[in-house]
Amino acid sequence: MKKSVFSVLAAMAICFGANAQEIKEDFKPSELNQPGQEYPMVNSQGYARFRINAPGAAQVRVSLGLGGQGGTVLKHLGDGIWEGTTDGPMDEGFHYYHVFIDGGMFNDPGTNNYYGSTRWESGIEIPAHDRAFYEERNVPHGNVQQVLFWSKSTNQLRKAFVYTPAGYGDKKNQNVKYPVLYLQHGWGENEYAWHNQGHANLIMDNLIAEGKIKPFIIVMTYGMTNEVSRQEPNRRQIVAEQFEKVLVDELVPYVDANFRTIADKKHRAMAGLSMGGMETHAITLARPEVFGSYGLLSGGTYTVEELAGRKVDYIFLSTGEKESPAQINAAVDALKAAGYNAEAHVSPGTAHEFLTWRRALYTMAQSLFKK
Amino acid sequence: MKKSVFSVLAAMAICFGANAQEIKEDFKPSELNQPGQEYPMVNSQGYARFRINAPGAAQVRVSLGLGGQGGTVLKHLGDGIWEGTTDGPMDEGFHYYHVFIDGGMFNDPGTNNYYGSTRWESGIEIPAHDRAFYEERNVPHGNVQQVLFWSKSTNQLRKAFVYTPAGYGDKKNQNVKYPVLYLQHGWGENEYAWHNQGHANLIMDNLIAEGKIKPFIIVMTYGMTNEVSRQEPNRRQIVAEQFEKVLVDELVPYVDANFRTIADKKHRAMAGLSMGGMETHAITLARPEVFGSYGLLSGGTYTVEELAGRKVDYIFLSTGEKESPAQINAAVDALKAAGYNAEAHVSPGTAHEFLTWRRALYTMAQSLFKK
Repeated sequence: MKKSVFSVLAAMAICFGANAQEIKEDFKPSELNQPGQEYPMVNSQGYARFRINAPGAAQVRVSLGLGGQGGTVLKHLGDGIWEGTTDGPMDEGFHYYHVFIDGGMFNDPGTNNYYGSTRWESGIEIPAHDRAFYEERNVPHGNVQQVLFWSKSTNQLRKAFVYTPAGYGDKKNQNVKYPVLYLQHGWGENEYAWHNQGHANLIMDNLIAEGKIKPFIIVMTYGMTNEVSRQEPNRRQIVAEQFEKVLVDELVPYVDANFRTIADKKHRAMAGLSMGGMETHAITLARPEVFGSYGLLSGGTYTVEELAGRKVDYIFLSTGEKESPAQINAAVDALKAAGYNAEAHVSPGTAHEFLTWRRALYTMAQSLFKK
Repeated sequence: MKKSVFSVLAAMAICFGANAQEIKEDFKPSELNQPGQEYPMVNSQGYARFRINAPGAAQVRVSLGLGGQGGTVLKHLGDGIWEGTTDGPMDEGFHYYHVFIDGGMFNDPGTNNYYGSTRWESGIEIPAHDRAFYEERNVPHGNVQQVLFWSKSTNQLRKAFVYTPAGYGDKKNQNVKYPVLYLQHGWGENEYAWHNQGHANLIMDNLIAEGKIKPFIIVMTYGMTNEVSRQEPNRRQIVAEQFEKVLVDELVPYVDANFRTIADKKHRAMAGLSMGGMETHAITLARPEVFGSYGLLSGGTYTVEELAGRKVDYIFLSTGEKESPAQINAAVDALKAAGYNAEAHVSPGTAHEFLTWRRALYTMAQSLFKK
């Protein structure tokens, strides 16, 4: 980029006032890039830099960027290459985005794709200072198993992913049984979210390798039951009653029959992020005999009133610091005062995004199935 | 599309001469579309119709299409919508493609993505007349397990997918062991290809459900060992000796330790498509003690000379009818004449594409591990 430091500082000053800073030219390819792709890049301050090849385009814009200007407008450098850098550092962690080429919405050919907003989107990762807990290490790794199960209530073959911890397949462990966490994605996402962008499997592998938790199974399935309207893909409704049937009456028995689970309430938890939290709230209250532990990740709270008389082993409520920490902390205080084993978690410096939920899973996993 | 039948016929006549036909207006969304997406569409004759939203674009083109004109040029219908239909029927089966917007290469936002040509590409499916063998049915389904294994020789964590047949997790089968097929993708593809675009898992599920084969395990891993050059992503080399180490000395022992395999040569096969066939050829000849059965799918042949003195249980050579059937048939004739248990398969009407390999797997699977 040919911008002078002066013009960068001037732009920063307009957008951020006192936060203006010089952009460090230590950009590296985002870890989520497709093989061999240099761009997008990220620097040590959290700025993202994009390059798109579109020789005949009139306008190229990326949906990410601060300042409320609708993202980052790329400039033509020549030879068909468009480039732009976010007008400030991004939050640590994972961000969905897309590119507008002459008004049409496309993915950045540089990155891998992640399902969010009811479509496969581009993704970029701003390395978090505490990323070690979800990084790939040379430790024993569990498997993520794609399962296809027939759902009578929706008359369709449905998909789930089942994380089985390292050693699950070892001959010596063939009599070992495991607790199970049913873990739901958010609105517009699907059953790939928790292991693709959430790194749920790596979080578990690392926790188990460090001896911080005892191994358990995680089941991740698609949390929508209704047919997508081809006319109105964004107006899909959550039909929690239908999903309750799929999850509790079809998937739970399938998992208990095909995996070595401890098939009782005490060793079965449900949690979800955002819309998945709302589903968790509805389903755990509707079917108190099924799940012993509940987790709402940026997905609301439980009140003492709605839990009245119920035996719950553990309740986890979490949020990003930029979301609603006061509400979460107050709810957990009230639950504790009423005698519940409840825990609050606030992810520092993050909003309604996946780093918030990676940290939440890391924290929640250490308290699940302890009782 | 507002083209009159006359102009369509005229265009067809220019491109195909005697093959000119009226385009039937029975287009339906491709089965590989993202949820809720109408386009691309496919009609009963195999024509594909594309629609792209790009209000300010000057030119929109899709890489698929016949006639050697560099694909299908889309026309602006108004309101930012560009549309175009291939200038002839496509071959049955799966095709990779991409879209050029003002000279930049992007994916079609309508479709799911499939790794080919060293990038995640758009995919479209022309329903094959014999598609039943890889369709999703209400039969018991096996799992596709994502495995992360540490590779000492390349000093990295590598990924493999392991298909375990239905019933693998059943309590009553915990003493059952299975043969294993190691199955490689082609150049520019990766370890997702055989189950994403190849439907290897569904092919197996259906064969097993019909009682046509006894269950076996399939292992699919990434067949390249060298670092992708960020400067020259398309000049990656196949380093079969390095991949041989990863596959034979690292992955085979990992699979034998973590899955219930019959861990001997007779119950271990290797096969691959295209570049994966060349790898199979090199590795089976270099390590005759490891694999008992060999399959080259559009990936060359074995000669009697190079096999001399070797004990091989089964050799499968296949190709698309539009590739090199004469060469494959001649090679199998020679192998049979020399006393080998060899089989040829030619996929009717297809070229170097995935329907050829789906049919090859379906055929080969019925002869593997029989001896």
